[in-house]
Amino acid sequence: MTYAVALNLESGMVFAADTRTNAGLDNISQFRKLHHWNRPGERVLVLLTAGNLAVTQSVVSLLDEAIEEDDPGTPNLMNVASMYRAARLVGAAVREIRAVDGPSLEASAGFAASFILGGQIGNEPPRLFQIYAEGNFIESTIDTPYLQIGEHKYGKPILDRVTHAELSLGEAAKLILLSFDSTMRSNLSVGMPIDLLVYERNTLEATQFHRLDKDNEYFRRLSKSWSDALRSAVERMEEFEI
Amino acid sequence: MTYAVALNLESGMVFAADTRTNAGLDNISQFRKLHHWNRPGERVLVLLTAGNLAVTQSVVSLLDEAIEEDDPGTPNLMNVASMYRAARLVGAAVREIRAVDGPSLEASAGFAASFILGGQIGNEPPRLFQIYAEGNFIESTIDTPYLQIGEHKYGKPILDRVTHAELSLGEAAKLILLSFDSTMRSNLSVGMPIDLLVYERNTLEATQFHRLDKDNEYFRRLSKSWSDALRSAVERMEEFEI
Repeated sequence: MTYAVALNLESGMVFAADTRTNAGLDNISQFRKLHHWNRPGERVLVLLTAGNLAVTQSVVSLLDEAIEEDDPGTPNLMNVASMYRAARLVGAAVREIRAVDGPSLEASAGFAASFILGGQIGNEPPRLFQIYAEGNFIESTIDTPYLQIGEHKYGKPILDRVTHAELSLGEAAKLILLSFDSTMRSNLSVGMPIDLLVYERNTLEATQFHRLDKDNEYFRRLSKSWSDALRSAVERMEEFEI
Repeated sequence: MTYAVALNLESGMVFAADTRTNAGLDNISQFRKLHHWNRPGERVLVLLTAGNLAVTQSVVSLLDEAIEEDDPGTPNLMNVASMYRAARLVGAAVREIRAVDGPSLEASAGFAASFILGGQIGNEPPRLFQIYAEGNFIESTIDTPYLQIGEHKYGKPILDRVTHAELSLGEAAKLILLSFDSTMRSNLSVGMPIDLLVYERNTLEATQFHRLDKDNEYFRRLSKSWSDALRSAVERMEEFEI
């Protein structure tokens, strides 16, 4: 399984994905699910993937092939003029893979794939999209500035309560890591390392990429102090009167 | 959908279930999913239900019919000698309903039903079981003294972090209500009122039954102060350094 989440804030964007994949509980591997493309000063695009690894890797390969071909008459992630057009490209790639692999997958494991695409192109404000296995997509708004894919439930309550568009990037990264902590405690198929990409609005550069492994000191401290804080918060709540 | 949870502690047991059922988002009703049977001084049994309402109501009807028939040669919830035997009866009732309704349900909505059965009979210690749609079951142990059915994910992280067998009953009831608060914020198909039954070990009486509706003052205070405590706990955590 996968857990991936992204926030679109006034100060920029934060993206994170775990790196664990599994085919059954007895076949666990590590694969990158956070991909990014950057032409400094012009565009930054970040793609998070969840679902069948064969499908999501194929989608990324198609997107990369189009960039390498570099045909001015054919849209690709590095030449489209807007994030909306970039999301359309991801949707089209999913549909192409579905046309090839869909029938045999639907007869067995099912065709499962979902994506979060975010970034900034030129003078557009940063935009964040969630693309479904059907190839259609939604865009985050100020009401709900975060999107999640994969195992989203365990980590959602804390995002629901705390997220707002004015969070600083450091606060947002912390919040996302707390959301991962809750998820990894309850679902073994989501695991470290966590890939984290922080994008500062209007810089059009992706310089802040971090891979947090299980020995990461910050994450260990955060996880421990969060456990302590939650336990003491529960203790402080007024008891139910029997 | 449903959320139901029970804790088996040294001091006794706490059971809770919401009361919302839905057939689609546009057809929401209120049905009781917490059932109990009590012969003071001899036995207390509590059953929480989740899944197809038609199935779970039929299971309860079968269990009640056997009690009303009161045939000493036929086991029922009020004459079996142990909680294990009581769990077997629930399992047998599920299988009987599955034999009748399973084929047509599996051709459409699917046969979904799960149960938590807990209580105390005579000199046995209190015991807690989770019974599956297949009619088989597991029992809680000191390692994991709680069981959940239905929409369990949103409310699980807080239970995972805080539950231990030495909790007082008032603390346990509070913890369960916090778990409901997280669930109801994220899943509209789980809703108030919440039925709560607190059983004090070795009393063999079920006297503490509470229905908490949306205007319940305690729950409102709890929900509000929990939100505030979580937000301030997040704020106090060390920021991720960008």
